[in-house]
Amino acid sequence: MVEKFVVTPWEVSGKVDYDKLVEQFGTQKITDPMLKRMEKVAGELHFMLRRKIFFSHRDFDWILNRYEAGEKFFLYTGRGPSGHTTLGHLVPWIFTAWLQKKFGVELYFQMTDDEKYLIKDMTTKQTTAFAYENALDVLACGMDPKKTHIFTNLEYGKTIYKQAVEIAKHVTFSTAKAVFGFENSSNIGIVFFPAVQAVPCFLPSVQAGRNIPCLIPAAIDQDPYWRISRDTAPKMGFYKPAQIHCKFLPGLGPEGKMSASDPASAIFTTDTPQQIEKKIMNAFTGQQPTKELQRKLGGNPDICSVCQYYYFLFEQDDRKLAEIFAGERSGTLLAGEHKADLAERVKRFMAEHQKRREKAKKVLDKVMLKD
Amino acid sequence: MVEKFVVTPWEVSGKVDYDKLVEQFGTQKITDPMLKRMEKVAGELHFMLRRKIFFSHRDFDWILNRYEAGEKFFLYTGRGPSGHTTLGHLVPWIFTAWLQKKFGVELYFQMTDDEKYLIKDMTTKQTTAFAYENALDVLACGMDPKKTHIFTNLEYGKTIYKQAVEIAKHVTFSTAKAVFGFENSSNIGIVFFPAVQAVPCFLPSVQAGRNIPCLIPAAIDQDPYWRISRDTAPKMGFYKPAQIHCKFLPGLGPEGKMSASDPASAIFTTDTPQQIEKKIMNAFTGQQPTKELQRKLGGNPDICSVCQYYYFLFEQDDRKLAEIFAGERSGTLLAGEHKADLAERVKRFMAEHQKRREKAKKVLDKVMLKD
Repeated sequence: MVEKFVVTPWEVSGKVDYDKLVEQFGTQKITDPMLKRMEKVAGELHFMLRRKIFFSHRDFDWILNRYEAGEKFFLYTGRGPSGHTTLGHLVPWIFTAWLQKKFGVELYFQMTDDEKYLIKDMTTKQTTAFAYENALDVLACGMDPKKTHIFTNLEYGKTIYKQAVEIAKHVTFSTAKAVFGFENSSNIGIVFFPAVQAVPCFLPSVQAGRNIPCLIPAAIDQDPYWRISRDTAPKMGFYKPAQIHCKFLPGLGPEGKMSASDPASAIFTTDTPQQIEKKIMNAFTGQQPTKELQRKLGGNPDICSVCQYYYFLFEQDDRKLAEIFAGERSGTLLAGEHKADLAERVKRFMAEHQKRREKAKKVLDKVMLKD
Repeated sequence: MVEKFVVTPWEVSGKVDYDKLVEQFGTQKITDPMLKRMEKVAGELHFMLRRKIFFSHRDFDWILNRYEAGEKFFLYTGRGPSGHTTLGHLVPWIFTAWLQKKFGVELYFQMTDDEKYLIKDMTTKQTTAFAYENALDVLACGMDPKKTHIFTNLEYGKTIYKQAVEIAKHVTFSTAKAVFGFENSSNIGIVFFPAVQAVPCFLPSVQAGRNIPCLIPAAIDQDPYWRISRDTAPKMGFYKPAQIHCKFLPGLGPEGKMSASDPASAIFTTDTPQQIEKKIMNAFTGQQPTKELQRKLGGNPDICSVCQYYYFLFEQDDRKLAEIFAGERSGTLLAGEHKADLAERVKRFMAEHQKRREKAKKVLDKVMLKD
């Protein structure tokens, strides 16, 4: 049976076949020689690279070439602020913070309060407010406040609109339609939006008056947006933005990515310890329906959301992770203990995150770009 | 023979049949009882109303109702800054200045430097620069600087983009396509633009926190934009903008509106007296090919660009205008004298206009809205 899955900037559903996605999207897999090179440049290898959570790229090797030739890049990523931040959002942000630190580079972070208003049943007041909430989580991931520039498209609208217009001239409706599947019933705001999302790929170059390479770390579902940027770049005299793509943290249910629109399937950075505990104790595992069967037959860590949480975030030590997976597979690790252990780790992580989130309130004003 | 003509926001060609246009666009003709009412409210009747140069409207009677009930409206009009200002542009602006004075109302004036960049072979630097040139002419028409707010979409971009996004959510691609004839090859900036042009219809209401009626004086080719605004208004809780439409000042050639893209067909406010003289002396008239034939057969003032210039701008006295038309028709007025007289008037007018244009430079900074 072929399992169906959908990955677009607006929908991720089904069990994602990442190899097929690389093929469909036409990106490149991250190879072991590339990791070796990365380790040499950065001095260490982040576990998300080692585990191929970041698994795909466009021109990442070119970014390393430029860097080694003495040309610094900048990082660009973003968030659609339609709700509170989930653990799933933190995956690329934690990695981005690591990249920023290792390479000593600037980060531009776009909050698409305009996009979320245009496609959700929300007001701009709501989407902009969530952008501020989400920005605290971005900073709590360990970004350097001195090198981090967060903005919402509506609050940095003069700069954004000007540059989006510059880009939009080079993007036809049919191109945008082909990439995003727009229809005649799509509103004209979302039709324009690909130009808005392309802006930060070029903005630092425009502002500096010279070409600066751009690297975008993001989940792979955002890839279509950068195809527009990459098409447009040479027409405007800019470098094509490079990308490095990650997989989705699974939801706590049987399949799909963690979704902020299904609160039970996701852990939010604003959840209380009680909420975290409850959600994890109700999570889907790869285990058998009873203790007895699990002991006898063992389970499947590959479909177990608890194992996946360790894999993506909560056990960075590969040896210890292997033990957890082996325990699940052999049947020695039972669901109750398995979940309770994870709940402890997540609560501990979140207590620290929330402390950093509180501290971030003090620097937020300095970090937010406005015009 | 049916003469073909085209009137869209981007093209006016052929001999325009204004009755047919009213029918096609679904607007209302301005009636004599409406003019009587206007005269009573304003204390006098502008010659452009008396002559039905402003000939069509949407809800202008409603504006008068609200005004008589004590509710002030605001005026909104604009300009696509793709070149210097022509006499044709001045027609609605002179009338707008009269409306502003008679009703004591605010004027919002949009310079669409974004639109012109998107559809012309021009840079944003060029279109924004022309916006500033054109703004001097707007003020030279006699606008009250204290009640006039001019802005370019790119320089007032934060405010404009935010409100355009609010509007765009309610406008589908198919609606925009139907109204403007967009195609798949249209760029996504121009597809978004109808939302941008709708912004000033509602902006003063948004900023005041209460509904304020809007009256748009403009040439009839701009009508499609306001159809989008009028469709959207009730969805957003705003009044529909009312409109009053004028005819086009003919070019100096045989037919069509004065066009800034054909420099010989139009007189610019930056022209020297020599240039003005030369253009008018080369103008198309409704006269016979020779003096002898003109004396014998007479000419046709309705197709004579010189007569039309008197009609639209340079002879406000109806009795004197009738004499000029009669002279052309009977053959007593010969082309050389006819054109030389007009050239004198236009040069005199322009000398005064250019003085006011110079003075306007002193107040421009205070009048321009930026964010």
